[in-house]
Amino acid sequence: MNIPNKKKIINDPVYGFVNIPFELIYDLIEHSWFQRLRRIKQLGLSYLVYPGAQHTRFQHVIGAMSLTFQAVEILKSKGIEITNHEAESVCAAILLHDMGHGPFSHTLEGLIIEEVPHEEISLRFMELLNEQFEGKLTTAIEIFTNKYPKKFLHQLVSSQLDMDRLDYLRRDSFYSGVQEGTIGHDRIINMLNVVNDELVIEEKGIYSVEKFLIARRLMYWQVYLHKTVVAAEQLLIKIIERAKFLALQKEELFATPALHYFLFNKIDKKTFYNSNEAIENYALLDDDDIFTSIKVWCNHQDKILSTLCNMLRNRKLPKIVLQNVPFDKTTVESYKFMVADNLEITMDEANYFVYTDSVQNKAYSANNFHINILFKNGQVFDIAEASDQYNIDSLTKLVTKYFLCFVRE
Amino acid sequence: MNIPNKKKIINDPVYGFVNIPFELIYDLIEHSWFQRLRRIKQLGLSYLVYPGAQHTRFQHVIGAMSLTFQAVEILKSKGIEITNHEAESVCAAILLHDMGHGPFSHTLEGLIIEEVPHEEISLRFMELLNEQFEGKLTTAIEIFTNKYPKKFLHQLVSSQLDMDRLDYLRRDSFYSGVQEGTIGHDRIINMLNVVNDELVIEEKGIYSVEKFLIARRLMYWQVYLHKTVVAAEQLLIKIIERAKFLALQKEELFATPALHYFLFNKIDKKTFYNSNEAIENYALLDDDDIFTSIKVWCNHQDKILSTLCNMLRNRKLPKIVLQNVPFDKTTVESYKFMVADNLEITMDEANYFVYTDSVQNKAYSANNFHINILFKNGQVFDIAEASDQYNIDSLTKLVTKYFLCFVRE
Amino acid sequence: MNIPNKKKIINDPVYGFVNIPFELIYDLIEHSWFQRLRRIKQLGLSYLVYPGAQHTRFQHVIGAMSLTFQAVEILKSKGIEITNHEAESVCAAILLHDMGHGPFSHTLEGLIIEEVPHEEISLRFMELLNEQFEGKLTTAIEIFTNKYPKKFLHQLVSSQLDMDRLDYLRRDSFYSGVQEGTIGHDRIINMLNVVNDELVIEEKGIYSVEKFLIARRLMYWQVYLHKTVVAAEQLLIKIIERAKFLALQKEELFATPALHYFLFNKIDKKTFYNSNEAIENYALLDDDDIFTSIKVWCNHQDKILSTLCNMLRNRKLPKIVLQNVPFDKTTVESYKFMVADNLEITMDEANYFVYTDSVQNKAYSANNFHINILFKNGQVFDIAEASDQYNIDSLTKLVTKYFLCFVRE
Amino acid sequence: MNIPNKKKIINDPVYGFVNIPFELIYDLIEHSWFQRLRRIKQLGLSYLVYPGAQHTRFQHVIGAMSLTFQAVEILKSKGIEITNHEAESVCAAILLHDMGHGPFSHTLEGLIIEEVPHEEISLRFMELLNEQFEGKLTTAIEIFTNKYPKKFLHQLVSSQLDMDRLDYLRRDSFYSGVQEGTIGHDRIINMLNVVNDELVIEEKGIYSVEKFLIARRLMYWQVYLHKTVVAAEQLLIKIIERAKFLALQKEELFATPALHYFLFNKIDKKTFYNSNEAIENYALLDDDDIFTSIKVWCNHQDKILSTLCNMLRNRKLPKIVLQNVPFDKTTVESYKFMVADNLEITMDEANYFVYTDSVQNKAYSANNFHINILFKNGQVFDIAEASDQYNIDSLTKLVTKYFLCFVRE
Repeated sequence: MNIPNKKKIINDPVYGFVNIPFELIYDLIEHSWFQRLRRIKQLGLSYLVYPGAQHTRFQHVIGAMSLTFQAVEILKSKGIEITNHEAESVCAAILLHDMGHGPFSHTLEGLIIEEVPHEEISLRFMELLNEQFEGKLTTAIEIFTNKYPKKFLHQLVSSQLDMDRLDYLRRDSFYSGVQEGTIGHDRIINMLNVVNDELVIEEKGIYSVEKFLIARRLMYWQVYLHKTVVAAEQLLIKIIERAKFLALQKEELFATPALHYFLFNKIDKKTFYNSNEAIENYALLDDDDIFTSIKVWCNHQDKILSTLCNMLRNRKLPKIVLQNVPFDKTTVESYKFMVADNLEITMDEANYFVYTDSVQNKAYSANNFHINILFKNGQVFDIAEASDQYNIDSLTKLVTKYFLCFVRE
Repeated sequence: MNIPNKKKIINDPVYGFVNIPFELIYDLIEHSWFQRLRRIKQLGLSYLVYPGAQHTRFQHVIGAMSLTFQAVEILKSKGIEITNHEAESVCAAILLHDMGHGPFSHTLEGLIIEEVPHEEISLRFMELLNEQFEGKLTTAIEIFTNKYPKKFLHQLVSSQLDMDRLDYLRRDSFYSGVQEGTIGHDRIINMLNVVNDELVIEEKGIYSVEKFLIARRLMYWQVYLHKTVVAAEQLLIKIIERAKFLALQKEELFATPALHYFLFNKIDKKTFYNSNEAIENYALLDDDDIFTSIKVWCNHQDKILSTLCNMLRNRKLPKIVLQNVPFDKTTVESYKFMVADNLEITMDEANYFVYTDSVQNKAYSANNFHINILFKNGQVFDIAEASDQYNIDSLTKLVTKYFLCFVRE
Repeated sequence: MNIPNKKKIINDPVYGFVNIPFELIYDLIEHSWFQRLRRIKQLGLSYLVYPGAQHTRFQHVIGAMSLTFQAVEILKSKGIEITNHEAESVCAAILLHDMGHGPFSHTLEGLIIEEVPHEEISLRFMELLNEQFEGKLTTAIEIFTNKYPKKFLHQLVSSQLDMDRLDYLRRDSFYSGVQEGTIGHDRIINMLNVVNDELVIEEKGIYSVEKFLIARRLMYWQVYLHKTVVAAEQLLIKIIERAKFLALQKEELFATPALHYFLFNKIDKKTFYNSNEAIENYALLDDDDIFTSIKVWCNHQDKILSTLCNMLRNRKLPKIVLQNVPFDKTTVESYKFMVADNLEITMDEANYFVYTDSVQNKAYSANNFHINILFKNGQVFDIAEASDQYNIDSLTKLVTKYFLCFVRE
Repeated sequence: MNIPNKKKIINDPVYGFVNIPFELIYDLIEHSWFQRLRRIKQLGLSYLVYPGAQHTRFQHVIGAMSLTFQAVEILKSKGIEITNHEAESVCAAILLHDMGHGPFSHTLEGLIIEEVPHEEISLRFMELLNEQFEGKLTTAIEIFTNKYPKKFLHQLVSSQLDMDRLDYLRRDSFYSGVQEGTIGHDRIINMLNVVNDELVIEEKGIYSVEKFLIARRLMYWQVYLHKTVVAAEQLLIKIIERAKFLALQKEELFATPALHYFLFNKIDKKTFYNSNEAIENYALLDDDDIFTSIKVWCNHQDKILSTLCNMLRNRKLPKIVLQNVPFDKTTVESYKFMVADNLEITMDEANYFVYTDSVQNKAYSANNFHINILFKNGQVFDIAEASDQYNIDSLTKLVTKYFLCFVRE
């Protein structure tokens, strides 16, 4: 009647229950660096459109870890050899794969620490943790960086059909209330198999995979790239850009010490890799630092900063227009001219209030990674060939949409 | 504190609650002809593959009626004029639209009553009911037959995006457990509007409509045309064909009086329209009559009938092979030869054990009816044009699959 | 990449997926006796009140088997020793525990085969199957009859908190749409443990157990003993009683051969155990036999039989009144007198139209079996003592309600 | 084809969709004071135990408003007279009833603004908004303060069975993943009626009300008063107490201006009502201000403050013991002595690390408000009398649990 002390069960609204399968996983979750993920929303500012989207990176990576463990069990039941240490390691790898995310995740990526994508920051965290955990994460790191001999383990963590995606699509759909994004994650996991060291989906799962690709596209346009969400994210970017600009001028700015460090110092790739100061400060940073400062900056004497901050805090977002071709320069300039006139600012400063850029989505790209379907006769085909539904083809086309944001007032 | 006596609430696992919005609707549901739908499964023999698919036509039409009432309320809130009598009538029309389904719905359509599709039988029931209800169903019948001036009311009952489909996709997905078939019926209904007397979907609902089309296709291949289901349905057809053949030979056959009537008489279009005997017997017939007889026929002296019946009752279904081109005659003949030899029957009789045919699905057909999208600027486009996702196009292609069923033994 | 041929996955609307964990289980499910359960509704006539309640015994026992397998896995992970053969056997035991149910389950229990409760019929089926399966079910039978040394295995199959109840409460709640009956089956299973060869629930699960007991009570009054359901069931009983009475008079009655056997022969305990004819006919009987006959009997010349049958077929159910004390004789007699007068029948025959009886529910009975709670300090208490919520106590009180059914017309 | 501009639809994971029924409601939601509720978690620190419990007051009050609108529609359909203005006002009243909640809701109530409960602060906000909205909220305020003639409207906002509770139980259960807390909110709302100006529940809903009371109790002990949650909340209280103590000593403390105001000034009832400064600062305060400061205080030179802050930030919570009787003084003192010794602090300072108090729950109190059940014969009884299930009685008993928190280290 013993219950290993660290075999906790976590209530999860999405899956009902999540079991912590290994003590190492429990110890990683307890680490203060990991606890930081409790304070980083999975979908950044999406809650301004979908009020339910308050879930965190913490919840996501625990969910992804749970799916990974299930996948491992299924593969083992089909005769695929996976040792206990490998199971533990692949779970650890996916648990930690998002450690590098900073406040508001993708939105501010490249702005807090310049040039360094979040995966590299994750890796840095893993290496530091590996020291603290006396080498127990070595295999996890090899799996994460795809240096481990059994390649399919890496594919569970990162591929067209990895457990990361399965969890985030299911979870983001659940919390945003966009129920059409729901995917049959359990069916897909049940259909996993391994052929020639590559993850494949058994034939019976082909419609579920199609459905997954389509749900993913739907979630992109309906949630991730929802135009109001894009407008809010762009606004947040402009705020941080302005704050960094003011910091460069040595203007005073309310900020926590950790945020102060990133506003007043230029942290690029070189700095990041040459000292631990950056990553230590980064480990202190979460959504709260940013939003608290924004609330205080609402009263800052710099009119541009305070205007932008009030807009975000009170949800008076910029207007946004989407179209399939780039906006021509004259249009953009005329908007800027109008705004500059209205707000009594320079044309240069108008860049904070009028901006154009593009967003893209490609649900499935046959070029860089295949989703392999295993037929009953043992043959393996890429989903794009295997489906007789003519559909996958269209999903590989890159869709680009151009947007123009502007503040009316 | 009065509760109108007939304003019942029905528990529905799919929607939680369904309210009966009109007394007429209540009285129709109470009618014994309508109660018959409680004993006709919505998905026929699909439960042999999806054990949960036990839901009935009764549940489906009440669900569809409920969605129709919601749609009416939404349209009224948007300024579309719909009188109380029209609301009642469109609800009655959809409630009764499936009255004409016989045992095992589509599977035996054309076998029980030859040449008369279920819609015509439904209409006949409606006309008889209209007499009993003293003309209260006249408008409902006009809406059902698309003779009512407000065409959009008919479109709620029958069109590419009618409440019938919304309910059956949602419900069949729910009960089969194929959760990927789930559609956002409430979002679609919320996005309904009327332009130039045609139902349209507001721009914001475009992804939900795409999702609906894709879910529909998925449900076709994964449930409705699931190959094992097709094999079971073909088996059932062969059983009834054999029973009718034996009846023609004046062989004795266990059957309820109502089923006896249809086995031993040839009921075609002419007979159907020339007397009420056919429809009165039809009103007594449901799934139970068929399956009970099949169980008894398991011991019939005709070896062909008893073999087929035992196969269905004990779920020893024929093998089935699917391919994208027709099966060539030689293959089919060789199978028949083998079976004739095994079972010691004639080549002619082997037709009961080896058969080939095709199934088709076309999720969206731009030719015969449009799904119109209403843009914010007031313009209306067909979904195939309106979507920049390249996808709809592929959905309009007709997919045909050819199958070959055979009994191995 | 081998998938054992019989390791099927079954779609289940309630749990998502159910895995068939052993080949033996697969083979048992394939057996024609087991397939019969597809045609016996879990909740009998409840669908007349809850249209969604169309689910079958087949679905229930597969669900219960699945929960049992989960429980076994959880217990093993906590160090409880359970061999592979024991796991297979306890799964088989619960899979087969409801084999003995006849048409409309509990309602007609004791009417089809007199004096023999369904558990004994189940056991008879198991023993016959054990012969066919060459002894593979011996341990399963020992577990079922509580003769196996590890008593906790029997408790998984039959006790206050067995997997049977967990499944049926969850499933009946799901299909009836009475969502308040939902229980946290996964939490309860996760909290299972074994102390001194008895199943216990770990302390953390105490509220879930309380909730389970309360949900069970709610399901009793809201669904199982819903007064309209009781009225319908009593009506069905009267129909079969009348049919048997007529059979005794050698009146002709439409019936399948199997049903004919039970109507025209008195099958009691002695007959049941002395020949295989009874059980072989029983194995052919399901809901369809009964309901098909009732439809035909609607036109029987015996007015009492035909009246009762028309009432059930067209859902014109008797009125029913409930109260906390027995109905006094005078009241009942006066009702009978009225009915006899109305329908022009004798007072004796009026017993088919006016009847009184009682229903009972006791959610938890501390006398015959304990739900043991395991505290962190290792102590074990009965839930009634362990809960400081004063509630359990009230749940142990027997609640009896008396009903009077009568036909108004 | 007009859609009133402010008739928005909000995606809600719990109910699917929420419609904004009145323009006034839309305008209130848009107000920056209301937007603040987006940054106050509904369940404070419960997410440390239930990671999913990230939902906000914003979501809750919109949900409660939605249920209120549904209740109004149901009551109107039953002939209860409710004018459009009254409907709008009762929706506004419940939308605003939680405006007075500060950071971490109940936990810090009385600590930020002393002596003033959140309802009074809500009322203050309403009065200020009423000025801004030119008297449109006068009726809403009368309903909120129970001065409006139709008392049942107040009962929708605040009573034993108000829409506030229906929403928060459903929502908290949903997000915490404690599915046993699920209540049948739609059934209860469908059963509402009004007799003698009092809300009643129709007889058929009696089991749902029982279930509601039991679910409420379950949520109390399993979520709201979960011992780890209590430990975390007590820790938070200690942190703020210590910060206020240091502020009194004029120690420097990182804080946003708004939080600084409350730390460094004693804001009691008198101050609160005598100037608008307090409420204006309060309107700037949310969870972020508190948690950001706590993160910074982790490095504060005051060892007590920094220790407490590190514990909360890294989720190293105090141990907590619960029992049914108060802890005796000697035990508590001995714990303090041990802690004082361990941490090298005074006995007085040890009060920050060892503390005892009690929590209570009474699910239903017959004394102060009745849940009235309306029987078919027109009689009205209190649920405690109406239920023959002996259960309600036990629910009225006050349950008190005593806890002792201490820091081990």
